[in-house]
Amino acid sequence: MELAIVNDDLIPLSELAAFYQDRGTFFGDGVYEVLRSYDGRIFALDEHLERFARSLREIWIEGVNIEQVRSKVVAAFEKGGFADAKCYFHVTRGSEPRSHLPGSNLKPNFFLTLNPLKDKPGEKEQGIRVCTYPDLRWKRCDIKSLNLLPNVMARITAEKKGCYEAILVNDAGEITEGAGSAFFAVDAKRKALITRPLGPEILPSITRSAVVKLAQNSGLRIVEESLTPARAAHYEELIMAVTTKDIVPVVQFDGQTIGSGKCGKYTHALIKEFSRLARGK
Amino acid sequence: MELAIVNDDLIPLSELAAFYQDRGTFFGDGVYEVLRSYDGRIFALDEHLERFARSLREIWIEGVNIEQVRSKVVAAFEKGGFADAKCYFHVTRGSEPRSHLPGSNLKPNFFLTLNPLKDKPGEKEQGIRVCTYPDLRWKRCDIKSLNLLPNVMARITAEKKGCYEAILVNDAGEITEGAGSAFFAVDAKRKALITRPLGPEILPSITRSAVVKLAQNSGLRIVEESLTPARAAHYEELIMAVTTKDIVPVVQFDGQTIGSGKCGKYTHALIKEFSRLARGK
Repeated sequence: MELAIVNDDLIPLSELAAFYQDRGTFFGDGVYEVLRSYDGRIFALDEHLERFARSLREIWIEGVNIEQVRSKVVAAFEKGGFADAKCYFHVTRGSEPRSHLPGSNLKPNFFLTLNPLKDKPGEKEQGIRVCTYPDLRWKRCDIKSLNLLPNVMARITAEKKGCYEAILVNDAGEITEGAGSAFFAVDAKRKALITRPLGPEILPSITRSAVVKLAQNSGLRIVEESLTPARAAHYEELIMAVTTKDIVPVVQFDGQTIGSGKCGKYTHALIKEFSRLARGK
Repeated sequence: MELAIVNDDLIPLSELAAFYQDRGTFFGDGVYEVLRSYDGRIFALDEHLERFARSLREIWIEGVNIEQVRSKVVAAFEKGGFADAKCYFHVTRGSEPRSHLPGSNLKPNFFLTLNPLKDKPGEKEQGIRVCTYPDLRWKRCDIKSLNLLPNVMARITAEKKGCYEAILVNDAGEITEGAGSAFFAVDAKRKALITRPLGPEILPSITRSAVVKLAQNSGLRIVEESLTPARAAHYEELIMAVTTKDIVPVVQFDGQTIGSGKCGKYTHALIKEFSRLARGK
C-alpha cells in the first residue's frame, strides 16, 4: 500500500489532500509578493504584479493569469476592510507526487493572506538595530522565490543579538541587502543616497525604487555602489526599506551607533516624502 | 476581517487549516531525507537518520525525536509491504502566520510518503545522459534543506536537452555534484575513482559514502579532487550515484560519448558490489 504519514497519522496515499504534495513545500518551487495599503489605498500594485509576473517567467511557471491575481488581491483588501493592511500571496508550480522534474499537466496553486498592519509607535523616530550576517543565498536573488531558509537563519541570528534585521555580506565583503529589506546609506557630505546597483544578487525592491525616486525631493542624489560594513557604519545615516514598514532609520550597525543614534534629517525627509506618496497627499 | 484565499476560495483566516501556513511552504524552512529498501531491507537507515539529525541541528530546529522518526520510517516500510520502496520524509519548523522570525512555541511538522520503486530495465547497462548547468544554489548545500528551486530549474533544463540529470558547475568552473545526485569519474589509467571532497558546497551523500567504501573491492583507489567539465568528459567512465537508483553509468556528457557509450567495467564492478551490500548477500 502506498501511504503517507502526517505528523502522527498514517493514511493511504490515495486519501492524502493535494496540498500536502505541493511543490512549494517539497522544493520552494514558487514565487511570492507582499504588498500593503495606506489609508485604504494599495501601494504600488502595478509594480508588485509586474515583478510577480517576471518572477513566474524566470522560473518557467506558466498558466497564471495576472489580471486574475490582481482581482484577488483587490478583493482581499476590499473584503478585509482595514485602512492599513498587509497582503501576502504566492503561486507554486502545483501539487503532485514529489519529483524534481515537474509533470506536464500541473496546475499552479494560489495562496493569499490579508492581515491588518499596525505601525510600531516611535519606530520611525527611534530606529532599529541591525547586524551583519553572511549572505548564504542562491545566485538568483532577483527572483522573489520561496527559497528563503538563509534569510530565516539570518533573522534568527539577528534576533539573538537584539537586532531587528540582518544585513547580508557576500564573499567579496560587500553588503548586498537586508535579509528582508533594502539597505541605504546617506553620505551627508556628498548629499548622496548610496545603495547597491540592481543585479542577480539583490531583489529589485519596490520600496527601494520609490525611495530612489523620492531622493531628489529630499536633497539627495543617488549613488549606486556597493558598500563594505566598515564603510557603511561610517556614514551619518543608514536606512532600511521594506514594503510593510517603508522607510525605517538604522541607528545601530554591528553594535556601533550611527549618527546621533536617532532618525537623521535626510531619513526624516524621506519618510515624510514617502508618506505623502503612499497616502496620495 | 483577516482572510485567506486558497486558489479561488476566500475564507476567514480563522477557518484556514494550519498546514496552509507551514513554514516549509513559506520559506522552505525544513529538512528532508529520501531512503529506499532492497528486497525488504531498508538501506543505510542509521546513516540517513544521522544526517537528518545534523540537518535539523544546522538550521536550529529543535524538539524532533530521532527515535520517533526511525519508528515512523520503519512502520511505513512495514505497512507498505513493498520489496523495493522509496521513502521520503521531511520536518519543517512548524505552522504559524508568516514571519521570517519563527515564533517561540512552534511545533515541528512531520511528513512522509512511501511508494514502490521500479528499477528501469536496462538503465544500469545503457546508462543515462547528463548535461552541465550553473550551480545557482546557496552556500550550505551540505544541509539537506527544502530550498531546492535551483535543483528543479537544473532538472527542467536537462530534460529539455534530453538528459536525465544536470551536473552543476560553480563559478570557478568546477563540477560540484548532480542536481540530485553525486558524481564520479573513473580514471582507468590511474585506477582511480575521482570525486569532489566533501564541504559546504555538496551534500554528504550516503550513496557516495557507500561507493567510496566499495571502490577498493572494485580495484579503484579514491581520489578526492574537483573536476572541470572538460576533464570529466575525458575519462573512461562517469558515474551518477543517488539513493533511489544507487549507481548508474553516465554514457553521454554534454553531448559527448563517454568511453564505449555503455556501462564500463569499473562501473559494472561497483554496481555488483553495491547490489551485494544492499541486498546483504
